[in-house]
Amino acid sequence: MNENLTADRPTFVTHLECSMTGERYEADRLHNLSRVGRPLLVRYDLDAVGASLSRDQLAARETDLWRWRELLPVRHTRDIVSLGEIETPLIPVPKSGGAKVLVKDEGRLPTGSFKARGLVMAVAMAKELGVTRIAMPTNGNAGAALAAYATRCGIETIVFCPEDTPEINVREIQAQGGRVWRVNGLIDDCGAIVGKGAGEGRWFDFSTLKEPYRIEGKKTMGLELAAQLGWRLPSAIFYPTGGGTGLIGMWKAFDELERLGWIGSERPRMYAVQASGCAPIVRAFEAGEEHAERWEDAHTVAAGIRVPRAVGDFLILRAVRESGGKALGVGDPAILKAVDECARRDGLLLCPEGGATLAAYKQALKDGEVDEDEEVVLFNCATGLKYPMPEAPNWLDRHGAIDFDQL
Amino acid sequence: MNENLTADRPTFVTHLECSMTGERYEADRLHNLSRVGRPLLVRYDLDAVGASLSRDQLAARETDLWRWRELLPVRHTRDIVSLGEIETPLIPVPKSGGAKVLVKDEGRLPTGSFKARGLVMAVAMAKELGVTRIAMPTNGNAGAALAAYATRCGIETIVFCPEDTPEINVREIQAQGGRVWRVNGLIDDCGAIVGKGAGEGRWFDFSTLKEPYRIEGKKTMGLELAAQLGWRLPSAIFYPTGGGTGLIGMWKAFDELERLGWIGSERPRMYAVQASGCAPIVRAFEAGEEHAERWEDAHTVAAGIRVPRAVGDFLILRAVRESGGKALGVGDPAILKAVDECARRDGLLLCPEGGATLAAYKQALKDGEVDEDEEVVLFNCATGLKYPMPEAPNWLDRHGAIDFDQL
Ligand SMILES: Cc1ncc(COP(=O)(O)O)c(C=O)c1O
Ligand SMILES: Cc1ncc(COP(=O)(O)O)c(C=O)c1O
Repeated sequence: MNENLTADRPTFVTHLECSMTGERYEADRLHNLSRVGRPLLVRYDLDAVGASLSRDQLAARETDLWRWRELLPVRHTRDIVSLGEIETPLIPVPKSGGAKVLVKDEGRLPTGSFKARGLVMAVAMAKELGVTRIAMPTNGNAGAALAAYATRCGIETIVFCPEDTPEINVREIQAQGGRVWRVNGLIDDCGAIVGKGAGEGRWFDFSTLKEPYRIEGKKTMGLELAAQLGWRLPSAIFYPTGGGTGLIGMWKAFDELERLGWIGSERPRMYAVQASGCAPIVRAFEAGEEHAERWEDAHTVAAGIRVPRAVGDFLILRAVRESGGKALGVGDPAILKAVDECARRDGLLLCPEGGATLAAYKQALKDGEVDEDEEVVLFNCATGLKYPMPEAPNWLDRHGAIDFDQL
Repeated sequence: MNENLTADRPTFVTHLECSMTGERYEADRLHNLSRVGRPLLVRYDLDAVGASLSRDQLAARETDLWRWRELLPVRHTRDIVSLGEIETPLIPVPKSGGAKVLVKDEGRLPTGSFKARGLVMAVAMAKELGVTRIAMPTNGNAGAALAAYATRCGIETIVFCPEDTPEINVREIQAQGGRVWRVNGLIDDCGAIVGKGAGEGRWFDFSTLKEPYRIEGKKTMGLELAAQLGWRLPSAIFYPTGGGTGLIGMWKAFDELERLGWIGSERPRMYAVQASGCAPIVRAFEAGEEHAERWEDAHTVAAGIRVPRAVGDFLILRAVRESGGKALGVGDPAILKAVDECARRDGLLLCPEGGATLAAYKQALKDGEVDEDEEVVLFNCATGLKYPMPEAPNWLDRHGAIDFDQL
């Protein structure tokens, strides 16, 4: 069986740190934002990690998310909660993307999205720290992952989502034991309700980046990618960016890996991909701003990246700029076309957010921003099966005369 | 990167054999059924496999399906087609199942179902043997897997499904480049159309067990299970049985593993689970028959096991009997209840067919057929996200007065 879930292993968290001011916060405590209202980052004694764990030892372990235990915040093996967080495959898309384009297919994770990475960690920490009731705003996938993991370890969950959240997500949350409410607003409006209840002490607030451990789970995307590529990183990463946890998490992961001496100082160019109908990070990037203003009248088929305001905006922008990447907007027609092409030509069904990364890649290629010889990783953050597909109208009467030439 | 997909490895197929008469057929040829109209089984030089590969060597490989290359029929590495056939996780379901109940979550495979295992192999062989056009009857998942893999390697596909096949499956097939037709009938009616076209030389017939390589792909469920459990097998396996490829395949896998000396002679009791609305195998099992008659007026929410007639009926019945297992029928209400309980209590969303195995397990427990101390594996053959879930009606006006006590 999987030793990652049963073997006790040393942990190395030293403290948490405000991502804006660097102010120090105690480990093993419940935290939301820092005193200045910004995300907290978990810090480790990386020298001690390096002394305790080698890349070879790591290679001998099962490949799931818990192989990275020494770089994760959960202290006690008994607090690990799991639904099978497998290492997600890298799938070439030669016809719709290019010879050196790989899709990291995060739809294989529990509840069908990469939100499982963040939530499995945050829920395990909530369990470790004695939380019994959690609330969260969601565009769908995060709520589903929260409900599944919290249910599994007996924590109560209340989830708020925009009223036009994909139906499947809303039902999934409820089926998995979460209480879910549709709200006439966007994700930040839902977040306001969660914040109000948290202020009254009704529940713990699990909003993106307002809780420090989700990012540690999401960071495993970066750790995994490095290990899968043989301790190299690709030239560029295209990431569909809403709250940006994944992008921030990967950037943090690369830093930790370098400090462990497991990778060098080269970094991929990070491309933060947004939909043109909701592109606050793109606007801020282009204007040279450090923070992004709220995007009004946000709309896009890619519900997961319909995030008008991100509390970690400056962290996203910083990572993108340091990496030499860009923030890129793509329109809904390009997104849908990319989804269609990838399925029809490479047999891989992307979610719209994954389609956005493929569309952005193609645009970047055209603009000379990336070269077709460069190895590129696109993140498909959820299974395409969660999203509407075009109708298939063909019908055949088996009692009639079948014209085989017409089939 | 994944060496399983790039490294050349020796292959050991010697011939194929009629599962009824034992008559020999040549390897590396296109085949459908044997002369007596029964499935063909692929045979290997297992002594040579054992001399060339050890369990330790196997353990050092990536864990995906292609690690088993020496026990698979594909000769040339260039013919491997892949969408990331990862090893599927075993997930405990302590609250809805029991302390020793594991769900093998096949929904993590490409196209969201275990059909990927069979079809990736059959398509690779079709590619190897020069097929350019394939037709298949399907209840949904098999067609989706076929379309994805065939599209990926440029083979044309035409798929026929019952008109009430889950909408998502029909659309998925089309999105992935398959031509799909709804037919007013059941899967065997669709099969008749495929057979007719094949007879006219219009396409190659890919019906379950009418093509000998799907079973080799499905057999990897058994190989994988043995490796995951440390070269032990569980006491019992509950498998949702339509055409039965998976059950037959696992039984074959266990036999091959024993002949390699990698496992002993103990076998799990195999439970073939069907829906009471379509239970030809259960009826034949209980009547002591070797073959199963067609089930008339088949109906069940578990579309994947709505198979009124199975060409491999005698192979299923033989494996079940040799193993000391049974064929068990469960009603739709029990299936839906099991799906609900597993999600609500263990956070794991099963497909209806997976729910059927949980329902059958609970019934078997009650009947004293299994003991709660026995390690049991249930097969969840597809992601629960492909199937309808109950409505989630809660709605909240963010401009109104929110009564937090009522949330
Ligand atoms: C499918 C999908 N892609 C991308 C995102 C954006 O993720 P992040 O918050 O890390 O930017 C989400 C978030 O809901 C999502 O569900
Ligand atoms: C989800 C699901 N479960 C079970 C089955 C039955 O599989 P088999 O043909 O191996 O009996 C199918 C086949 O369509 C399926 O889609």
